[in-house]
Amino acid sequence: MDGSVKHVVMFRFKADTDEKKIAELIRGYESLPKKIEHMKQFEWGADMSVENLHEGFTHCFITTFADVAGRDAYIPHEAHHAYVEQLLPYLEKILVVDFHPNERVSSRT
Amino acid sequence: MDGSVKHVVMFRFKADTDEKKIAELIRGYESLPKKIEHMKQFEWGADMSVENLHEGFTHCFITTFADVAGRDAYIPHEAHHAYVEQLLPYLEKILVVDFHPNERVSSRT
Repeated sequence: MDGSVKHVVMFRFKADTDEKKIAELIRGYESLPKKIEHMKQFEWGADMSVENLHEGFTHCFITTFADVAGRDAYIPHEAHHAYVEQLLPYLEKILVVDFHPNERVSSRT
Repeated sequence: MDGSVKHVVMFRFKADTDEKKIAELIRGYESLPKKIEHMKQFEWGADMSVENLHEGFTHCFITTFADVAGRDAYIPHEAHHAYVEQLLPYLEKILVVDFHPNERVSSRT
């Protein structure tokens, strides 16, 4: 285990949020790594699972921090706060789980 | 965007599941990449988020498949099915979201 932290976030937007607004809000999240140096990696996508266990969440975002200190600097960062203020009025639900990756198995390459 | 698929799974175990059983069930999940070649990368950890938005989930697991075909081969795979049968009696809740990573930004290295 290295000390890195995976920060997994899921959104469901309110039903009356149009596609243009959703795209704008996602671009806002995408712009954060340029503003917050602690975000070492960032990837996101729309749910395309087929097991019907998504609990209504439609988008997933994974940020990697180098360490807990990076995560702890991100949360109160002014750029993060400004983004959350823009975002929250359009969210129906959100989920956030952080973890230290215990394993990075590449089974076969 | 490459064609890879991130398969994000969250668990909450039933309250009467002891730590030994939880460790055993996690080892079972960890053993799957050796049995299912489609699991190209696997990482997991216990929630250590501080924003209190975990919705009760306590563990997160991220599997990477090379493509949708890999994900679609994993779901009905007999080793996956056998694991799910062992696991389900101990789960209070589960969440599964899959996505194509649209972005892999490394802001600074």
